Amino acid sequence: MNSFGRNFRVSIYGESHGTGAGILIDGCPPGIPLTAEDFSEDLGRRRSGKKGTTPRIEADEPHIMNGVFNGYTTGAPIHIQFYNTNTRSRDYARFINTPRPGHADFVAHQKYNGFEDPRGGGHFSGRITLGIVAAGVIAKKILGETKVIAELVEVAGSKDIEKVIEEIADSGDSVGGIVECRVVNVPIGLGEPFFDSTESMISHMVFAIPATKGIEFGSGFDAAKMKGSEHNDCFIDKAGTTKTNHAGGINGGITNGNEIFFRVGVKPTSSISLKQDTYNMSEDKMDELIVEGRHDACIALRMPVVLEAGTAIVLADLKLTAQKR
Amino acid sequence: MNSFGRNFRVSIYGESHGTGAGILIDGCPPGIPLTAEDFSEDLGRRRSGKKGTTPRIEADEPHIMNGVFNGYTTGAPIHIQFYNTNTRSRDYARFINTPRPGHADFVAHQKYNGFEDPRGGGHFSGRITLGIVAAGVIAKKILGETKVIAELVEVAGSKDIEKVIEEIADSGDSVGGIVECRVVNVPIGLGEPFFDSTESMISHMVFAIPATKGIEFGSGFDAAKMKGSEHNDCFIDKAGTTKTNHAGGINGGITNGNEIFFRVGVKPTSSISLKQDTYNMSEDKMDELIVEGRHDACIALRMPVVLEAGTAIVLADLKLTAQKR
Amino acid sequence: MNSFGRNFRVSIYGESHGTGAGILIDGCPPGIPLTAEDFSEDLGRRRSGKKGTTPRIEADEPHIMNGVFNGYTTGAPIHIQFYNTNTRSRDYARFINTPRPGHADFVAHQKYNGFEDPRGGGHFSGRITLGIVAAGVIAKKILGETKVIAELVEVAGSKDIEKVIEEIADSGDSVGGIVECRVVNVPIGLGEPFFDSTESMISHMVFAIPATKGIEFGSGFDAAKMKGSEHNDCFIDKAGTTKTNHAGGINGGITNGNEIFFRVGVKPTSSISLKQDTYNMSEDKMDELIVEGRHDACIALRMPVVLEAGTAIVLADLKLTAQKR
Amino acid sequence: MNSFGRNFRVSIYGESHGTGAGILIDGCPPGIPLTAEDFSEDLGRRRSGKKGTTPRIEADEPHIMNGVFNGYTTGAPIHIQFYNTNTRSRDYARFINTPRPGHADFVAHQKYNGFEDPRGGGHFSGRITLGIVAAGVIAKKILGETKVIAELVEVAGSKDIEKVIEEIADSGDSVGGIVECRVVNVPIGLGEPFFDSTESMISHMVFAIPATKGIEFGSGFDAAKMKGSEHNDCFIDKAGTTKTNHAGGINGGITNGNEIFFRVGVKPTSSISLKQDTYNMSEDKMDELIVEGRHDACIALRMPVVLEAGTAIVLADLKLTAQKR
Repeated sequence: MNSFGRNFRVSIYGESHGTGAGILIDGCPPGIPLTAEDFSEDLGRRRSGKKGTTPRIEADEPHIMNGVFNGYTTGAPIHIQFYNTNTRSRDYARFINTPRPGHADFVAHQKYNGFEDPRGGGHFSGRITLGIVAAGVIAKKILGETKVIAELVEVAGSKDIEKVIEEIADSGDSVGGIVECRVVNVPIGLGEPFFDSTESMISHMVFAIPATKGIEFGSGFDAAKMKGSEHNDCFIDKAGTTKTNHAGGINGGITNGNEIFFRVGVKPTSSISLKQDTYNMSEDKMDELIVEGRHDACIALRMPVVLEAGTAIVLADLKLTAQKR
Repeated sequence: MNSFGRNFRVSIYGESHGTGAGILIDGCPPGIPLTAEDFSEDLGRRRSGKKGTTPRIEADEPHIMNGVFNGYTTGAPIHIQFYNTNTRSRDYARFINTPRPGHADFVAHQKYNGFEDPRGGGHFSGRITLGIVAAGVIAKKILGETKVIAELVEVAGSKDIEKVIEEIADSGDSVGGIVECRVVNVPIGLGEPFFDSTESMISHMVFAIPATKGIEFGSGFDAAKMKGSEHNDCFIDKAGTTKTNHAGGINGGITNGNEIFFRVGVKPTSSISLKQDTYNMSEDKMDELIVEGRHDACIALRMPVVLEAGTAIVLADLKLTAQKR
Repeated sequence: MNSFGRNFRVSIYGESHGTGAGILIDGCPPGIPLTAEDFSEDLGRRRSGKKGTTPRIEADEPHIMNGVFNGYTTGAPIHIQFYNTNTRSRDYARFINTPRPGHADFVAHQKYNGFEDPRGGGHFSGRITLGIVAAGVIAKKILGETKVIAELVEVAGSKDIEKVIEEIADSGDSVGGIVECRVVNVPIGLGEPFFDSTESMISHMVFAIPATKGIEFGSGFDAAKMKGSEHNDCFIDKAGTTKTNHAGGINGGITNGNEIFFRVGVKPTSSISLKQDTYNMSEDKMDELIVEGRHDACIALRMPVVLEAGTAIVLADLKLTAQKR
Repeated sequence: MNSFGRNFRVSIYGESHGTGAGILIDGCPPGIPLTAEDFSEDLGRRRSGKKGTTPRIEADEPHIMNGVFNGYTTGAPIHIQFYNTNTRSRDYARFINTPRPGHADFVAHQKYNGFEDPRGGGHFSGRITLGIVAAGVIAKKILGETKVIAELVEVAGSKDIEKVIEEIADSGDSVGGIVECRVVNVPIGLGEPFFDSTESMISHMVFAIPATKGIEFGSGFDAAKMKGSEHNDCFIDKAGTTKTNHAGGINGGITNGNEIFFRVGVKPTSSISLKQDTYNMSEDKMDELIVEGRHDACIALRMPVVLEAGTAIVLADLKLTAQKR
């Protein structure tokens, strides 16, 4: 349920306003060098504080609690924990009665019979992605020369990203965006036909990241408009290099050694400062709602590093699994 | 690897030109009426023979081998088997040396060290989806009033579907298309936050279906161009009905009771009758290739019923899992 | 539910009196030579027909349906199927009302709400172990020089095995026995601490074999009477060889390179020809029952080969999992 | 690897001398009342300090980090953490070179290529069972009226338990023992035939508890000496009550509503204060070893509460799995 992976297996936990959040990583090979500093860059990329991300500044300090000894992974489960330090919970209780549009308030209250932690979205918080980023740092080490690079390429349909976000942040509204991800130096043979196809595993992970609305590999939705004679990627050497890469580096679910390429559509942040309509569940009538507090004007800004991490986790798992045949 | 699901678990097997293919279904509740006739409609929808699908006509007769007694499921594993009857294997051996663009010939040969069954694509064959369609029939029964409906809405960018396919079939080329899927009468509360989100599970399954290139839920990639104030779905009653459905019926990974809606981009069939360039692996030089045999001009034509089946399998699993809390 | 294993994964199906039974094997490496003849020896050892086993002679012919091409495993799921040919179903329907002591009649009827296949025990039949034996043949090939040898060492508390069984068979009663299993040439490092300990995995599998009542590793229950100074196995070389083997070849859940040794207690066959008391569920009173038909006087006779197979499946999975971690 | 369960899933982590240990519990239903005090009794039963257990006194204070809000489980992953406070690590480094008999020193060093945490046994420490006991407290709540009761019934072959342990503790040696476990008010229908049989799941868990050497259900190994006419449990009412309980409450892997009964053989603590022989790996010759520090003279003393917890975890998982199938 909150776990993912066969041989490199991650399990997440945590809440936005409780004691903290973290991740358990099982199946990591022993002997990988790992210190708290290794997480700095990627956690920094995820952190808020830039224009367009929420002014809630968390220390986001990773605590390597278990599974590392003398600076190396031991082969035992790795546990990385983050404490919550800067929370203001007064804002959230009323969202049970007047659920925020676009949020999980309504479904959580139904699914968990009213026992959900409503503070800051509780377990649904984007803060849980801290653990994913941390596990991604380790997964990237397992991948070695195979590198995952994600980039925000478009916001609100525009490539003039900073300008758009500045405007939207000032307006109290939010915007969506598109993130592209490519993986280079991919070994041939990762993934399985059908259920454990590389696309299946990556998309499974990517839709676990809040705000994801769509994913497409290689030519993606454009393939629907193409002819087979255009779309088929012609092999041009013994190594399997192809002239084009409409396949996005994957044939029959299995990596073909070319660059893995996919794009992800990210919705605008659901929390906005503008007044919104919603339903008042106790008074049984329409109502209005202002979501005070600190919001990301463009959650897609934080997406690239989370996407890299999730993709690295998937590929590390597929790599370890492929080695077991 | 070839299995999917937690409490309603399917395992597929089979090859295009071997003895046959099938599916094992574990966790199906006892007492569901089931006869071979129940499969006729959906298997018929999947079957070839229409313009645009391959003229290879298979009997596609489902054999309920196990798990059904006196017309009802028993609670033991259900095994449904299909025999191959109409195969012509002579066409395929040379594709090891000159791999077909867009196919798994090259990666299979690498991944399985040359031991793969190359006949008709072996285990990579679209014929394996027979089992998925069969399991979907059972999953649909578990879903009861929750109905899954998929439809091909676009081919080669055009809504004039039959006309386009007729032209392309005559030309020896192929085309892609877009399939839309909606699920109605969805209970609130299916799916889990993060890794087992409804979108994660559905997309995992959908990318297991050969030829899938992209998936988007609700507003999908268009969300990337929207503002939060436009995108957020306003609740309009106590049941959680929303005015718009940009969420595609899912918040925080959990179904909200509104229609589940997603779109799938399907690539053009990789097998075409036109001459193609490829690499000759033994002579280490570029070569030409004609893929004789029987091809679908538009594999997207067969997609709707497979997509319905896959989606039903996912939702049946989520439904049984949700009941276990 | 009916599956076992992480990287070498088996899924069983079948009924005693339906069309047949079989097993699906996923994760088997490609390139392992495999023909129907490879199964002859172990299936022969499992087969009935000897004094003390049921006179129901089944052909027990293994059909390699999928996953093997030109005599080698392909890396795709291997499917091995057995057809039922010699069934007499008239005997079984009444056991729903007057459940056989020691059998699953009563629990199956409750658990599956009356929809279970009652013929010959349905899915609870020992016939399902055919698939386990078949998968064991493949697992043994994966294990290479690591050999699993099981032996019936005691029947009804006596080592004079044939004599005891002959007597009991003539009397219409049945007897239990003890089977010992040893594994030689075991690599160091299989298994994991805690949940996936070698003992956990083996015992999980062994209790899946009908009639198993107990299992003990190394010194087993005798360890409860020993002192630490006696029980501790002293290392006597750099390879980890120990002077004694009270550990049964496993420390902290992980194989230490010494022989794996365990013993299994097997109950007497539940089906006997003698008149037995049971409860009549419809008349709500005590009743008498004679179970006609063909019975094993000592099911433990068939146990060694099934135990070897189950153990080999576990060790093959642990071996593939441990590889290159 | 370090996880167990399908619908009630526990994941353990931790080391003896690192920051601490803990457990993640996924799939727990929402709305179960839970406070730190609920753990006191069972953690107290597990704690050392009694004659025969190590004088290392740990606070063993459970920290409910996640998944509980306002005193109730929320449905999100529950995380319970224990900090290590009283560790003396100087004793352990040399055990890599002269591995302690009966311990995992040797296998851990081999399996993890020398990167294992050797302090206090690292991840192999019995201290990891803290998490199992904590999860057991929650599992017991899920089980409701179904009660698990384990008891130490024999030490060193004697029922005069305290006297034996006092003597052995004074001698610096250790002893094994036998623990009996019974479960009352068991619903009919838990467990599955074959791989997920109730015995398979319980034994899987029980062998995950350090020092377990054997397990037997109902008549256990004695069944090997019995006749079918003696062993078969006669049904005596419509509810499935049986006159005897040789089956240990389980038929065909499925609970029959009678008491579940099993016995566990526990080896003597491997750590003893007496001088022992072992092999010196760097000097390549036999050597002597004294394991200073604090030891349990009889680890079986702590076993009952861990066994109860493990069994409750298994049965909670089977209960949630069986629900509404």
